[in-house]
Amino acid sequence: MKIAILGHGVVGSGVSKIIEESCSDEITIAKILVRYENEMKDDRFTLDYETIVNNTDIDAVVECMGGDEPAHTYVRRALEADKNVVSANKKMLARHLDLFDIAKEKGVKLLVEASVGGGIPWLVSLRKMRRDDHIRQIAGIMNGTTNYLLSRLFSEGINFNDALSNAQELGYAERDPSDDICGHDVRYKTCLSALKAFDLIVDEKKIPTFGIENIDDKDIAYARDNGRVIKLIGRAEYMDGKLNAYVMPGFVKKDSLFASVSSNNNILMSESKYLGKAYFVGQGAGSLPTGHAIVQDLEDLANDMVDEEAETITRKDVDNEKEGTFYIRCSDMEGFNDMIDKKIDDQSFITKRCKVYDLVKKIEGLNDEKIFIGEILDD
Amino acid sequence: MKIAILGHGVVGSGVSKIIEESCSDEITIAKILVRYENEMKDDRFTLDYETIVNNTDIDAVVECMGGDEPAHTYVRRALEADKNVVSANKKMLARHLDLFDIAKEKGVKLLVEASVGGGIPWLVSLRKMRRDDHIRQIAGIMNGTTNYLLSRLFSEGINFNDALSNAQELGYAERDPSDDICGHDVRYKTCLSALKAFDLIVDEKKIPTFGIENIDDKDIAYARDNGRVIKLIGRAEYMDGKLNAYVMPGFVKKDSLFASVSSNNNILMSESKYLGKAYFVGQGAGSLPTGHAIVQDLEDLANDMVDEEAETITRKDVDNEKEGTFYIRCSDMEGFNDMIDKKIDDQSFITKRCKVYDLVKKIEGLNDEKIFIGEILDD
Repeated sequence: MKIAILGHGVVGSGVSKIIEESCSDEITIAKILVRYENEMKDDRFTLDYETIVNNTDIDAVVECMGGDEPAHTYVRRALEADKNVVSANKKMLARHLDLFDIAKEKGVKLLVEASVGGGIPWLVSLRKMRRDDHIRQIAGIMNGTTNYLLSRLFSEGINFNDALSNAQELGYAERDPSDDICGHDVRYKTCLSALKAFDLIVDEKKIPTFGIENIDDKDIAYARDNGRVIKLIGRAEYMDGKLNAYVMPGFVKKDSLFASVSSNNNILMSESKYLGKAYFVGQGAGSLPTGHAIVQDLEDLANDMVDEEAETITRKDVDNEKEGTFYIRCSDMEGFNDMIDKKIDDQSFITKRCKVYDLVKKIEGLNDEKIFIGEILDD
Repeated sequence: MKIAILGHGVVGSGVSKIIEESCSDEITIAKILVRYENEMKDDRFTLDYETIVNNTDIDAVVECMGGDEPAHTYVRRALEADKNVVSANKKMLARHLDLFDIAKEKGVKLLVEASVGGGIPWLVSLRKMRRDDHIRQIAGIMNGTTNYLLSRLFSEGINFNDALSNAQELGYAERDPSDDICGHDVRYKTCLSALKAFDLIVDEKKIPTFGIENIDDKDIAYARDNGRVIKLIGRAEYMDGKLNAYVMPGFVKKDSLFASVSSNNNILMSESKYLGKAYFVGQGAGSLPTGHAIVQDLEDLANDMVDEEAETITRKDVDNEKEGTFYIRCSDMEGFNDMIDKKIDDQSFITKRCKVYDLVKKIEGLNDEKIFIGEILDD
């Protein structure tokens, strides 16, 4: 199978290293698209996408560019040119879910194992489960940067801004960290996991998302005093035609499995009718783990071992009728009066049990830019 | 694909329930072998294996009988009759690893996903990893009964014998619990995991095995005082042609991932060159989880999606040259004099760093029936 790799940075170079070191002859890198002339190392390198998309010898395009454009256009054109595509680009994929429709129409594969949980065999496990089981929910710690930050806040007692600056210096967090710390990255991954678990296309913009950007020493102290740690969790549940999906910090018990996943590791959980709860843990990012997941997709393509996709993929709105109990710290508690179960101090409280939908509506109405919210989780 | 199920107890009835409720027409149960006439519910049921093994319409035999014989003979005859076989019977499989050779010679599949980690997609993940990665080690909590017992010892402070009797009353432990508590069950699963991870056939009888049958309140207290819990761990490491493989209680840190896997859950870990460490957690036993894993194997067979096995499977002796540090409680410390690093009391001590091989030889020489040993683990 002849492939082209688009982009040769952290992920793209991981892919070519693994293929060159480990694969048999079944996968050959025919072309590598780069942006600048000084990145061109041998005659496989090119600056011109046309030489890839118009090359009928190339069976699969591996998109490792990141970002929305031109990645999105290149992937769309590759699918339209009857090429299989492998991509790790969760942001682009979650924003353009119709690419999965195009792949289906064209009878080619769009494989995205590396887009959620890095190297962890997560999406492939969901697809295999789907063949004879009914997945009811997925949830996970899906972002290594925020998990690294939260782990340091709890283990070292430093404050959030110091931990973030330090992570940026070390290259563990981006210069503009908002996609990570505000939960957008987790939202994209929740959206893609829901697609694979439930065959639902959910508009990522409609998934309520709360990050850790406003976390404060008081929140940490409350968690610690109650035998808990805070983790940023993406979650989707689909039962009886109703969909719950949201991204939110969770106050998890300190002896739970989620609590023990520290540093930049990820954990993904599925709950299904027959298998019950299954958890997958590992490195959620990095050149070789992500490269490994991409090469796994390529091996499946080369050996014609891709699980069949669903007959139909359905568009679905988020219902969020699920009830929960939440920790809230805000500028003015007045607006929450009817929801308060237990005051912690002048700014923070635990809610009565309430629907996620109602809580989100209330918070949107109040428009408090400094609010921090987390769900009290008991499993 | 037409199948026959051998045995219709806990696992066999789980398999037929899942197939009947969830699978499309691609898997049909043609025959079900049972032992007694009063188990026969419809005309698919039979008491006679000959009607199955001689039936050329049957593509795959699902062995859910458990025990060594007649399961072993039935599986061997099915393979020799060119039928694919799916089995959850770790004891029988680990004792008759030549069955994998026979499957290879005959060009049929012997799929055993359910034999390790129950419903957790563990062996299939190892096989997929092997295509482009190099697995260096596997380790895990592979036995739900002992993990349930150990969890109770630590969370409730009851003693081992009371916990065991109680578990037997509840049906969580067998009347004769020795396969579980003495570590034999973990040894079978370690052996099968090593086969799938390294393509090595290791004689299960040569894998040193220490269980929890002699565990005592003092051992629990030492672990707790040092911020640890005890888990029964099977482990195999293969690097540079050397194999470490043993089953032994491990003293793991209480905030580690292994420590957080409680009750009857299992955790399986692989470490490989590109992916790094990946962990798989879930229910390691039970009718539906185990049935789920068997049906997954059947789906792979029906869709011709079984990963190719290794070209060659090599026989390998255990080296156990790896060094570690161990907790030992014994009747007479005299014999260990040259190995003691730190005495805890008159009967227990921590060893100097030593090779597993040397430690095992020493223990075998002393023949102390009441010895309890555990490895001090730092990851």
